[in-house]
Amino acid sequence: MKSKLTLALVAATLAASAQAQVKVEDAIKWRQANYATMGWNMGRIKASLDGAYNKDEVIQAANVIQAIANSGMGKLYVPGSDKGSGFHETKVKPELFTEGAKVGKIAGDFNAAANDLAKVAATGDAAAVKAAFGKLGGTCKSCHDDFRNK
Amino acid sequence: MKSKLTLALVAATLAASAQAQVKVEDAIKWRQANYATMGWNMGRIKASLDGAYNKDEVIQAANVIQAIANSGMGKLYVPGSDKGSGFHETKVKPELFTEGAKVGKIAGDFNAAANDLAKVAATGDAAAVKAAFGKLGGTCKSCHDDFRNK
Repeated sequence: MKSKLTLALVAATLAASAQAQVKVEDAIKWRQANYATMGWNMGRIKASLDGAYNKDEVIQAANVIQAIANSGMGKLYVPGSDKGSGFHETKVKPELFTEGAKVGKIAGDFNAAANDLAKVAATGDAAAVKAAFGKLGGTCKSCHDDFRNK
Repeated sequence: MKSKLTLALVAATLAASAQAQVKVEDAIKWRQANYATMGWNMGRIKASLDGAYNKDEVIQAANVIQAIANSGMGKLYVPGSDKGSGFHETKVKPELFTEGAKVGKIAGDFNAAANDLAKVAATGDAAAVKAAFGKLGGTCKSCHDDFRNK
């Protein structure tokens, strides 16, 4: 019992300490930075799909989205960051902090779709990229619909 | 001569069209987003080097920095974006738009250092990561010193 309690205390202390390292305003700013960076790169892929397909640019963009998707961005949803301002006021809905299972499902789908997009981007197969891009966009939308204010 | 002139015209038209696609305020916002995203990830690597080394977190962070470094961010320095506001007023100095050779040298060093950091991060060798991280930070600093206002 004692060791279990100690472990729990250590875990709680570590969690508190890790959270203390990231200020709410920084966490919100960095979330916004990550999403805006992905937004730029999504736009570049869309431009390639809508116009002249540029394989290298699509690879560059897909690699950024993949790296960010796998970077553990969830850590930026620190307690208290359901309200506040980074580059601007956060649009997150408080439900994102309480509906863990639903958020986890979307996050997992998003990661898988981002990994798939980077994989097909490397082949230069525009049709496959279009399909993977649509799937990834769907995971973005599902989170925006449920967890982001307009 | 005719075909050379045609090619030059096509190239100029394409360049103008590519530039027209990115508005100055978007270009500045996306630059700021990319740098802030890298800043978060640089901070995570530093925390790992200063405290308990977390191999997975360093890999995640180094992969994001590498992907952004290789994403062709130079395209975001569109004409006219030496002034203006994205998430906030740009801090870029006008010299960045005129000192091409110097900027190119720094950008090349930055890319090489980001690729090297991601490579050594994968090994989990903290000492090698520390050295690569220092080198990468040096390339950031050299650009900030010359081309970013305080």
